[in-house]
Amino acid sequence: MNAINIAEKFSLFSDYFNPRIIGELNGQLIKAAKIKGEFTWHSHTNEDELFLVIKGLLKIEFRDKPVDIKEGEFIIVPRGVEHKPSADEEVHVLLFEPATTLNTGNVDNEFTKSILQRL
Amino acid sequence: MNAINIAEKFSLFSDYFNPRIIGELNGQLIKAAKIKGEFTWHSHTNEDELFLVIKGLLKIEFRDKPVDIKEGEFIIVPRGVEHKPSADEEVHVLLFEPATTLNTGNVDNEFTKSILQRL
Repeated sequence: MNAINIAEKFSLFSDYFNPRIIGELNGQLIKAAKIKGEFTWHSHTNEDELFLVIKGLLKIEFRDKPVDIKEGEFIIVPRGVEHKPSADEEVHVLLFEPATTLNTGNVDNEFTKSILQRL
Repeated sequence: MNAINIAEKFSLFSDYFNPRIIGELNGQLIKAAKIKGEFTWHSHTNEDELFLVIKGLLKIEFRDKPVDIKEGEFIIVPRGVEHKPSADEEVHVLLFEPATTLNTGNVDNEFTKSILQRL
């Protein structure tokens, strides 16, 4: 058991929309992702998803409204709710979600990452 | 769905070793706790536990070694592992753990909090 330094994990990769696994507990994964630009509309049938912003400003569009999530803030997107993450500038986000969660949920497209690297 | 500001949640209480629930997903709870002084030795039979340090320096003693967890770092304590959190100065910690988790695990003493406030 060791302390995991979040900033150090983010220093190990630079690509966007490609989450890395940095922790696992109780069947849930902690993932680190860099986001810049627009992701795809999707939802997760069986998984609630938490986005915790470590650096920058994350925008998540829902069908009825957009929400800004700033550094030091998190949002929980319940299962079944369509959402579209985006960021004008690079954002560092921690994700907390079940190990079964696919990044694009019910959608399979160029953003889909079925196998994630562990850091 | 709204963004949850972590610092704002910590501004709403001041007592130590009394976690508040600030989020819930997939049967897991996000808790905010302030820690100062020494907690009790304990373990969780069925729950892994994540400590994410938002502010300050958290120390966790294990039977074989102590670990320091600094601001921006987290540690995952696997189920069954005895541990004793402590802090010389006030620390703000986020906990990610199953909803079934009791703060003192297998121990029932003056630190035990069976019912937690939701903020």
